[in-house]
Order: sequence, then C-alpha cells, then structure tokens
Amino acid sequence: MRGVVMLGPGEVQVQERPDPTIVEPTDAIIRVSAACVCGSDLWPWRGVDALDGPAPMGHEYVGVVEQVGSAVATLRPGQFVVGSFFASDNTCEICRAGYQSRCVHAVLMGAIGTQAERARIPLADGTLVATPEMPPAELVPSLLAASDVLGTGWFAAVAAVAAEAGPGKTVAVVGDGAVGLLGVLAARQLGAERIIAMSRHADRQALARAFGATDVVTERGDDGVAAVKELTKGLGAHSVIEAVGTQESMMQAIRSTRPGGHVGYVGVAHNVRLPGEELFFSGVHLHGGPAPVRRFLPELIDLIWRRQIDPGKVFDLTVPLDAAAEGYRAMDERRAIKTLLTV
Amino acid sequence: MRGVVMLGPGEVQVQERPDPTIVEPTDAIIRVSAACVCGSDLWPWRGVDALDGPAPMGHEYVGVVEQVGSAVATLRPGQFVVGSFFASDNTCEICRAGYQSRCVHAVLMGAIGTQAERARIPLADGTLVATPEMPPAELVPSLLAASDVLGTGWFAAVAAVAAEAGPGKTVAVVGDGAVGLLGVLAARQLGAERIIAMSRHADRQALARAFGATDVVTERGDDGVAAVKELTKGLGAHSVIEAVGTQESMMQAIRSTRPGGHVGYVGVAHNVRLPGEELFFSGVHLHGGPAPVRRFLPELIDLIWRRQIDPGKVFDLTVPLDAAAEGYRAMDERRAIKTLLTV
Repeated sequence: MRGVVMLGPGEVQVQERPDPTIVEPTDAIIRVSAACVCGSDLWPWRGVDALDGPAPMGHEYVGVVEQVGSAVATLRPGQFVVGSFFASDNTCEICRAGYQSRCVHAVLMGAIGTQAERARIPLADGTLVATPEMPPAELVPSLLAASDVLGTGWFAAVAAVAAEAGPGKTVAVVGDGAVGLLGVLAARQLGAERIIAMSRHADRQALARAFGATDVVTERGDDGVAAVKELTKGLGAHSVIEAVGTQESMMQAIRSTRPGGHVGYVGVAHNVRLPGEELFFSGVHLHGGPAPVRRFLPELIDLIWRRQIDPGKVFDLTVPLDAAAEGYRAMDERRAIKTLLTV
Repeated sequence: MRGVVMLGPGEVQVQERPDPTIVEPTDAIIRVSAACVCGSDLWPWRGVDALDGPAPMGHEYVGVVEQVGSAVATLRPGQFVVGSFFASDNTCEICRAGYQSRCVHAVLMGAIGTQAERARIPLADGTLVATPEMPPAELVPSLLAASDVLGTGWFAAVAAVAAEAGPGKTVAVVGDGAVGLLGVLAARQLGAERIIAMSRHADRQALARAFGATDVVTERGDDGVAAVKELTKGLGAHSVIEAVGTQESMMQAIRSTRPGGHVGYVGVAHNVRLPGEELFFSGVHLHGGPAPVRRFLPELIDLIWRRQIDPGKVFDLTVPLDAAAEGYRAMDERRAIKTLLTV
C-alpha cells in the first residue's frame, strides 16, 4: 500500500509500504477514507523534534473496517469508524475515569502512521467508534476532525469552560490553528457567552467568528494579555484555552486568566518551564495534556451527524495522499489552516 | 503596645510599637487573643526570603474587636473574631467567585503584623467573621488554626479532593507541617477513603493518624512516588495535596498523581520551575496558590464550634508573646510543629 513517510526535516514522500496485518487478536484493519496533517506533524518537519530515521506519519483517520481480529466483539467489516490518536482499551481504571489518552495499554497511533491507504488499529473495540451508517461525503471532513483537532479543542474547552460557562462568562483562546479554532466552537457549544479569539490572520479570524467568537484580539504576549484584561474589567477571562504549546503562549494564557479561573492547555509543550511563584500567585486552575478524544467521540459524532456543528470547515486544503508533501508545505507556510488527504 | 519584629535572619525581638489606630473608615482594631508562627515566617528567619529592614511579623490571629471605623456595619466592640492572612472586601467579583485571597482590594496582613497585642484589620466587614459568642478557652487554638493553616489545608483538599472524594479514592499528602496535617483532616472531612500521609517524624505521623490518615509513607522524592504507586495499583493517587513549596515537593506531588487526578498545592513556591513537557503528559489537574481562607471561615468556625474537628492539636508549643523568639527557634529546629503565642 502507499503511505506517507518523513525522511527528514521538510522531506515527506509517499512510499510503497507493507500492507498491515492483524498482529493481536484485538486489532482491526481499516481502509483509510481520509487522513490529515496535524500541527504536531510540523514539529519534526521543521526540525524542532528529532527523527530517528524515516518515520511513517499520521495519527488522525476515518475509514472502513476491512478485517477484525478474533477477539474483536463490537465491530464488523464494512462499518465506517472514527478513532483517535491513542488506541485505548476503554476498560482500564484510567479509561473509565475519562483519560483514554493515558490508558494503561495506550498505543500511540503516530507510530503506526495513518496517512496511508490502510492502518492497523490496536485495541479496536476500545478505540474505534462506528457511525450509525455510511456517512455522506460532506460529513467526512467533520468526522475526521473529531479524531483529533475537534476532540482536542473540545477537551481544552471542557477543562477551561465547564466550570465557568454561562451568562457573563468570558473565554479567551490563545492559538488560531485548527485546535484553537475548534476550541472556539467547543466553548460556544459549552455555553460561554463571550469568546475572544486571539488571531492576526484575517481568514482565521473569519472562521473563528463563524464558529462563535464574539471578539478578536490581534496582539500577542503581554500586549495580548493587556487587551484581554481591557475587555474584562481588568480582571482577566474566566477561562482560557491554550492551543500552541510554547513558553510565550502558556504564559499568555495564564496571565490572561483571572484568579480562580481555568486554563485548559492542549498545545504540545515544547521547552516550556512554568515559573512556580507566578503560577502560585496567579491562583488559576491548570489542566490539559494529550486530549482523551475517545471520551468525547460518541457525543461529537452525534453532533456532527445531526448537523449541529461543522468542524470540517478547518480543512481549507484538500489534496490526494500522493500530494502529501504539498499539504505539509502549505500548513508550514500558513497558506492552509489544515490539510485533508483523500485516500 | 508590644509586637514581634524580625530584625534579620534568626533575629526576632518583641519591641514596643505604636498602638494601631483607625486609618480607613472600613478598619477595625482588635485586641489579639492569640497569634502564631507560620511556616512561611521561617523563610525570612532562615534567610531564604530577603528582608528590607526590620519587619513586623505575623498574619494569623483571633481576637476581640475594640473599635470600628465609621463605615463598618456588621461588627461591634466586644465580638470575638477570626480573620485570615489577606484582608478582603468580600464583595468584589473575585471575592464573590471565592478567591478572597486575590480580592481586588486585598491587603496582606503580614505587612501589618499580628504577632502583637493589637492589630488594625482593613476591610473589617469583609475580612472578619465573628463567633456565635465568646469562645471557651479550649476552642481558641482551633479558631486560630482556622485563620491560616486549617483554611489553607482545607483549600488544598477542596482543590484536590472535591472532584475525587468517596469510596475507593486515595489522597496523598506531601508535607507534614501544620498545613499538610490539616490537609489530612480536611481530606477526611471531604470524604476521602484512603489518606496517605508522607512523613518521617513519629510525632507528626501520630497526629496525621489522629486526623484520619490511613497509611504513612516515609520515603521522599522518587522513592516516595514509587511508594504511593505501590499503594495504588501502580496508577498513583487520585488526589495529592502539596504543602511544602519546593521543586522536589511539587514534582513529587505531580508524579504521585494518576492521569486525570488532582493536585492541590499550597506550599508557597520557592524557586520552582515546572517542566512543561512532563506536566503536559502527566494529565493532572493543578490548582493552588494563596488560600482564600475567608471562603471557608464560616463553615470551619461552625465545625470547630460543634466540636466536629480539633485542628488546634497542631499547636504543640505555647509560649507567651514575649518568648516569640523561642517559638521561632523551636519550629525552625522542628522541635515544634507549630507555635501558639498567647497575648
């Protein structure tokens, strides 16, 4: 089968790779319908994260079950399924508490590589959620978004907004990538009244407004903090979603939050060191990490199926799998918010 | 009046100081009945926190109202009152959200100094809570504990335990000072089933067990983490209370917590830098800071008044105000858990 391999920074190829096979009886093999390029795929592309030789790429996916292992009980060939970037058994104590991304048997899908024609999905019963029936083509981008960026933005919003939703409550969103934009959508769904999107790109600002942002702040860093405070009587936002993962974005998020407020952070941390004294006196709640997307998949699929949300709008570039390199380049150069790969 | 002044590291004197007077119409003057030495007073005593010249000391207090300013509406001379280490108006938006320690008009009582015969209490209506009547002498230590260490341990437990209480849930407590020990008491009150106290001192272990600890771990650092994991099926505690404030204690707390669990941290941070990547992948909830003790005072006073809790047990040394220096020394040398100063 064909699949995307990263050879080194800036170097992505579609190569012939071995077809996946059932390894464990709990595995399923899916034919990938659509995959995509993640913001986190740009870290090795840019040489920030080191690669140990050529690496299969991709951890977001929707597809059709082709084959199931002998221990798979709930899935059958022909079903359309959505999974997340961690395979999880969904039965261990950590999964049952809603942290499937830290399942005691978690398998990172990025090591398998879903930017490919087929993929092996470990722990298939726990990992995959089937749609009610084969989806119409127009729903596929939104279902694909659910597998990571929507689920991740949703988790950040649950962490930041759940305790702070309702009339008079303000959320600020640091980061205008796909996750930040879908954090806006999630905050709206979870009942935030005022949503401040922090973005300096007109196309992203427009999408943020379409997803429910009520205000846009173009300043960054301390100026961004000052702008959020000005919009909130000097106190800061009740909730802040952080969707970047740098020192600057984390400090901007913490400083934009009022004492007792909530920060939900999902940008994968890179060289971040949080100063303990400042964090202590900030009095904020801090929660985040790799999103347990599986927790939210049934609800998100239902919202998409009933056309209540349209997260697929974040895909503003669609290319065939064979043109994956162009998809990476466009995101790296910020010509695209997010690239969908048709398979 | 007489009052404690710190002249420099290790140097505490009781000096004659001016009697306090009403400065703002919202002030009250109290005659201090009892004050005490805080773990945080040991930072300048040990030379870790710098002093800008001689400083009045003390921020924990109970006493009797002697005089009120013209704008004070709810208090009258003769009432016995408990306050916390931040004066707060208790009406601003931050106070109403329960974060009185970050009141927009907050005044740090440590700058006023309550280890003295009298003290000016700013924002008296918001800051002070009167007891139902003059308390019997045996309740005074517990009421004094409410003004800081109990309220602080309670806040940590609310932050860590509230979402994780009930059958099968485990709390670990890092730090066996007065705050950690009262964190044990609070965790018990809030419904934790299993409470692991981390302590290597027999007297503190005994008090922890009296307050409700079910297990004691004597190891520290990574060994302490391993011991907590061994007691929790390898997963870590559901909740961890951090009551020290060092890099080692914060990392021990975070690493002892299972993914999705809660860390409540109230040890005043000193030279702490939290590694963003490790925090991200830990998946814990982190909340803490200077405790909004005022939020809990009515409930804590009620529990003490009804003899439901006996937090005053943390005072294992009582000396008159004039012997304050010995009280500091005994705590510094860990001969005393906490020193009560009779005035």
